Amino acid sequence: MNRIEVAHKAMKRIYDQGGAPLDQICELTCLAIDKLAGISTEQYRGISGKDYFVYVLGSFRSRPIRSSLMLSDTTSFRDSWTEFLASIDGQTRSSTMDTVKIDSVLYTAIMGFASCFDIWKPKSRKTPGTHFEVLLGSVLTKFLPDLARSKFIPLPNQDEKLSTDIVFGNERGGIVIPAKITTRERIVQPYAHQRILDSIFPEGRYRSILMCVSETQRDDDETAVNEICVPGTVRLFQTHLSSLSGIYYLDPPARYMQEDVAALVRVGSYGTLLRNDLAGLALFTTLAPLVAPPAP
Amino acid sequence: MNRIEVAHKAMKRIYDQGGAPLDQICELTCLAIDKLAGISTEQYRGISGKDYFVYVLGSFRSRPIRSSLMLSDTTSFRDSWTEFLASIDGQTRSSTMDTVKIDSVLYTAIMGFASCFDIWKPKSRKTPGTHFEVLLGSVLTKFLPDLARSKFIPLPNQDEKLSTDIVFGNERGGIVIPAKITTRERIVQPYAHQRILDSIFPEGRYRSILMCVSETQRDDDETAVNEICVPGTVRLFQTHLSSLSGIYYLDPPARYMQEDVAALVRVGSYGTLLRNDLAGLALFTTLAPLVAPPAP
Repeated sequence: MNRIEVAHKAMKRIYDQGGAPLDQICELTCLAIDKLAGISTEQYRGISGKDYFVYVLGSFRSRPIRSSLMLSDTTSFRDSWTEFLASIDGQTRSSTMDTVKIDSVLYTAIMGFASCFDIWKPKSRKTPGTHFEVLLGSVLTKFLPDLARSKFIPLPNQDEKLSTDIVFGNERGGIVIPAKITTRERIVQPYAHQRILDSIFPEGRYRSILMCVSETQRDDDETAVNEICVPGTVRLFQTHLSSLSGIYYLDPPARYMQEDVAALVRVGSYGTLLRNDLAGLALFTTLAPLVAPPAP
Repeated sequence: MNRIEVAHKAMKRIYDQGGAPLDQICELTCLAIDKLAGISTEQYRGISGKDYFVYVLGSFRSRPIRSSLMLSDTTSFRDSWTEFLASIDGQTRSSTMDTVKIDSVLYTAIMGFASCFDIWKPKSRKTPGTHFEVLLGSVLTKFLPDLARSKFIPLPNQDEKLSTDIVFGNERGGIVIPAKITTRERIVQPYAHQRILDSIFPEGRYRSILMCVSETQRDDDETAVNEICVPGTVRLFQTHLSSLSGIYYLDPPARYMQEDVAALVRVGSYGTLLRNDLAGLALFTTLAPLVAPPAP
């Protein structure tokens, strides 16, 4: 576990200096896969026919892992990772890889690492979230090479900056990316931030996409996996607080794919985002400069 | 401790049925004061000349207690509580008691109970917050006897209600009261909710006041108490997200009383609210019915 922690810290250091430590993410994920290969698993039943398993060691259990998305040996992960990176075109801002394969390789990279922490470092609760942010920021840097990556948005006439997880932008505006492994009640924050940005930049300089892994919850008594969803809250926020440009999950909750939510906000997998949606979402950053409306 | 838990549950049951268990709160607070009288305390130094202490039992420590606000014997608490209840006039929606005495009696009622849980039931993290909500809701029922108390706001054309901690209202509108012992990053929620209410009821049918205890954090190495404040965030939210009608603390953070925050949002003690501000804040609920603007 010490090697995984050291590798995580080294990777974060490169990221914080503006880099995209993609090779390091690959090596670190292989370390995690190898470490998890030695322990047993237990099957859990999900909703809508989804299958999960949980890593078990003594009284420690990992978060639920979607069986169909997790690559369990380092060779197949390494091949998929290499293929994924090669499939990314920074000019068209898209990947040509099969959408399910995109989801699978990114799911393995975050959930392998997070499961190791669940089992061997359960007190380091924040580290998996940090790792998720570094993973997403590094991968998206390959998709958006002409935009600058940051963690905050400078605001005119305010000594406060708006802090977020990841933002890619230029002088025309940018894409704000709150990155949360699960959201629960924290889903209010991306909506509030987008509203503030709409208020400060009414010409629409920033767009937000929320990127998550899943909304799963383990039920050990039933060996089942529940999805904690708040469709009414999402509808309310999307209608009356602000408009997110999309909500993307590696393991999208079945409930959010239903018509009443999907009619209001684009909900999709990462494969959908990276193969299809991102190019259109980011298009406005390369169009003619936006003109702010005259001051009142 | 068992007696305190049983009394808390009985009190909550009355509250959930619409009651205001004021006598029960008094008895429960006296139980807590008696229980805490048996253990030792340690002095902590606060900022801006404020003094605190912490209850200590073995390796367990309570949250920091502001020395000048805590009543440490049941006789003085009981007298103050009786005087406070007698000072409340539901017609004028105000109390005639000295503001510092109002703060002191309510501070003792929440912090005595919460400290018992810190020491003897540290895993029941949510119970002090529940108790705080019941305390506030019960007391405010005496101030606003003609308004109905609820925990949610029904929304037209939505199958979702907006859930909050406490709301007092009638057909003309209401006062929404998020009640948090401390806010930290959760301060976004009252602002987001007020924004949603402004969007759904643009004629201004609801007003929010945030009610907290403090923003203190214990530093055991320095035996000091820090205040975790986010003045830039409060300014940003108050300017660009929505407008809270007030933020009230039993132990207001020094930083929030400074000009740059206080110029944007009313920040005060509970004494200020209950002696001076509440009557004006609630006035709109007794004026002529609001007229919604014509549909666009």
